[in-house]
Amino acid sequence: MNFSDFGQKLTGDSGILRLMADLGEKPPADVKVYPLGGGNPAQIPEVEKLYRSEMEKILKDGRMFENLIGRYDGPQGNVEFIKMLASFFKKRFGWNITEENICIANGSQSACFYIFNLLAGTGTENGKKTLKKILFPLVPEYVGYADQGIEKDMFVSLPSRFEEYEDHTFKYFTDLPKVKDYLMQHDDVAAMCVSRPSNPTGNVLTNEEIKTLASYAHAHEIPLIIDNAYGLPWPSIIFNDKAELFWNEDIILSMSLSKIGLPNLRTGIIIARPEIVRALSNLNSIIALASGGFGQAVALNLIKSGVLIETAEKIVKPFYLEKNRKCQEYIHKYFKGTDYLVHKGEGSIFIWLLMRDLGVTSMEFYRILKKRGVIVVPGEYFFFGGDSFASHPHYSKCVRINYGCEDTLLEEGIRIMAEEAKKCSRK
Amino acid sequence: MNFSDFGQKLTGDSGILRLMADLGEKPPADVKVYPLGGGNPAQIPEVEKLYRSEMEKILKDGRMFENLIGRYDGPQGNVEFIKMLASFFKKRFGWNITEENICIANGSQSACFYIFNLLAGTGTENGKKTLKKILFPLVPEYVGYADQGIEKDMFVSLPSRFEEYEDHTFKYFTDLPKVKDYLMQHDDVAAMCVSRPSNPTGNVLTNEEIKTLASYAHAHEIPLIIDNAYGLPWPSIIFNDKAELFWNEDIILSMSLSKIGLPNLRTGIIIARPEIVRALSNLNSIIALASGGFGQAVALNLIKSGVLIETAEKIVKPFYLEKNRKCQEYIHKYFKGTDYLVHKGEGSIFIWLLMRDLGVTSMEFYRILKKRGVIVVPGEYFFFGGDSFASHPHYSKCVRINYGCEDTLLEEGIRIMAEEAKKCSRK
Repeated sequence: MNFSDFGQKLTGDSGILRLMADLGEKPPADVKVYPLGGGNPAQIPEVEKLYRSEMEKILKDGRMFENLIGRYDGPQGNVEFIKMLASFFKKRFGWNITEENICIANGSQSACFYIFNLLAGTGTENGKKTLKKILFPLVPEYVGYADQGIEKDMFVSLPSRFEEYEDHTFKYFTDLPKVKDYLMQHDDVAAMCVSRPSNPTGNVLTNEEIKTLASYAHAHEIPLIIDNAYGLPWPSIIFNDKAELFWNEDIILSMSLSKIGLPNLRTGIIIARPEIVRALSNLNSIIALASGGFGQAVALNLIKSGVLIETAEKIVKPFYLEKNRKCQEYIHKYFKGTDYLVHKGEGSIFIWLLMRDLGVTSMEFYRILKKRGVIVVPGEYFFFGGDSFASHPHYSKCVRINYGCEDTLLEEGIRIMAEEAKKCSRK
Repeated sequence: MNFSDFGQKLTGDSGILRLMADLGEKPPADVKVYPLGGGNPAQIPEVEKLYRSEMEKILKDGRMFENLIGRYDGPQGNVEFIKMLASFFKKRFGWNITEENICIANGSQSACFYIFNLLAGTGTENGKKTLKKILFPLVPEYVGYADQGIEKDMFVSLPSRFEEYEDHTFKYFTDLPKVKDYLMQHDDVAAMCVSRPSNPTGNVLTNEEIKTLASYAHAHEIPLIIDNAYGLPWPSIIFNDKAELFWNEDIILSMSLSKIGLPNLRTGIIIARPEIVRALSNLNSIIALASGGFGQAVALNLIKSGVLIETAEKIVKPFYLEKNRKCQEYIHKYFKGTDYLVHKGEGSIFIWLLMRDLGVTSMEFYRILKKRGVIVVPGEYFFFGGDSFASHPHYSKCVRINYGCEDTLLEEGIRIMAEEAKKCSRK
């Protein structure tokens, strides 16, 4: 069958497809599986209890359940949920926003698809055809963006700079002067995009980096898209107390209910200037008619009352902090004696591991690990937006580890990983 | 702000946007509202009870609720739900299908967006650029398709032929010789698409029409997309006992849980050959990561046990049949003496009304009605895929009526409509 260019581009061999296929794939019967690969959040009993209780309330409250399942929301999302969010963010963060600044999509992945293609791709400016691009100012970056452009060459990116520390750790930074130069020299950038906390690295861009990027965005009259799926005020999987949440009219803030425990209810939240919110609502209408309302219904009162945010701070964040600490401990324990570095665990549900003396590519290493039942995501997929990345010193030397699974699986998975890494060492 | 061509095309003034805005719009305080406009299904107590009971079972069954909300499905959909469907359709209809023939999307609107753009638009064939199109062999057709092409001029359509009857009714038919000729003369058709039962007209293509279209599809090696949102075996809003459900590898069958009462759970089901299912799953992965799982969970056992289908036959179909009959009765009562025709009420939740002596366009008529609180959808929006439609005798003379609201609202809405139609008569 002959698919369109769009079809071929979006259904070709890609990182996210491989990742999702892995998630869905049944393990072979005789191999124990260590699921360190996918993006599922941990199942935390204290959080689950809240959702169960909300669901029970919905069932008990007259016809609330029936009206929830049986009525389409408008394409912008549920009116009550959006109003509540506007008032919540205004009150808590002092932002000057109303319900015109917020819309809902079937997950923030869909929202990103809308945003990227709304702003970038072929367009017309002063009567001339242009090809506008999304600039990712720091890669490695989330693999799920990599194939979302409906046209070719819609994404460009700049490699991170990094600092290494004595204790086998390192940290990525945006190369700000390079970003500044790039924007000065190119008039085809439609928007910049970063995940903060970062999937895959666990990096959290500093307040200074974000403020600087936002100032560049303002100067060039382009939006800065911040994917806040792991950030403040929920799920608050961010271990750096100094990190603040920013929003202004130059920023498109993407949030989610997935990482606070509702991935299967597909609820993405976008906060942006009204003009962009209107356009995204319209795209949602054409493409999806309306978004599902269950996630919004279950979260409404939990956000409104402050319970969800308190739970994020007091339960979710400490839970992941402790897991993150353990994961690093296991890595240091089992990789001892090899040339490895762990990215500073500042946030998100991932640890990014650099193995400098790996004698095979991380793609090959992934296949070796899979035979042992250890599922991770090879690092190559997170380098995109250009073709110079093969020369990046980290390109084929990293894996992304989801550290959310139970401790014994995590430790044994990492032990096996270290064992195999040593076998594959070029030393 | 400068949006891309894609952004401008999909967020411009369009029928579906107007329709969805209307759905979300609050009525003015002093006018009583007669909601005959949107696409919400009726809320039927016997059906609602089933869903409530399933939800209660999910909550009572150990960690079923927690695993439902807290785990991503793969991009093809929930494995258990898909296996159940494959075995259900194989058993009930004798189709030769497996789980490789089925995938799930966040509503069938999203599924159609995937299908249209996967198959049609710019592509490459034998090294040459082509612009393939979706052919709608019968318009008026569902307004929600009209703007789903990501490129311009991706849709073409052929006007229906129609027969008028003595009792102020009429019926559309596919102009089959014209379809045949069109396909012979054009090699740029990537697929054909029909809704059956039809939104907006309530028409149900005859078995003969469908078989003939399917044979054309086979001969030209293109798929026939059948949007079965209102059809068999659920919600079974189809009043013609002779109408059969067809599927073979030339057909892409689109189904939904919306019209059987779960619109807000956004569950679209596609049945097609494995090659297409794989491509659609991949598109879903890139664009949406995964589909929401709630609708699938609530419907799983109801479909498996046969209860949903039995309820569709015994409750849903008679409910709509009776409403449809009443709606026609009201129309005949209040439009008496005017030159009107009602499309045969063969299925779907809509009645299509032709007012031949309307002295204003149906777009203007819609605005007049709206001031009186009566919300319908003007007919012009359902003519698309070409620009010769202004000359179609029904182009600006029809409205779509959702007859699912309660009887008193429906009758009074139609009474007001007739009153205004008489005022607007060119006689």
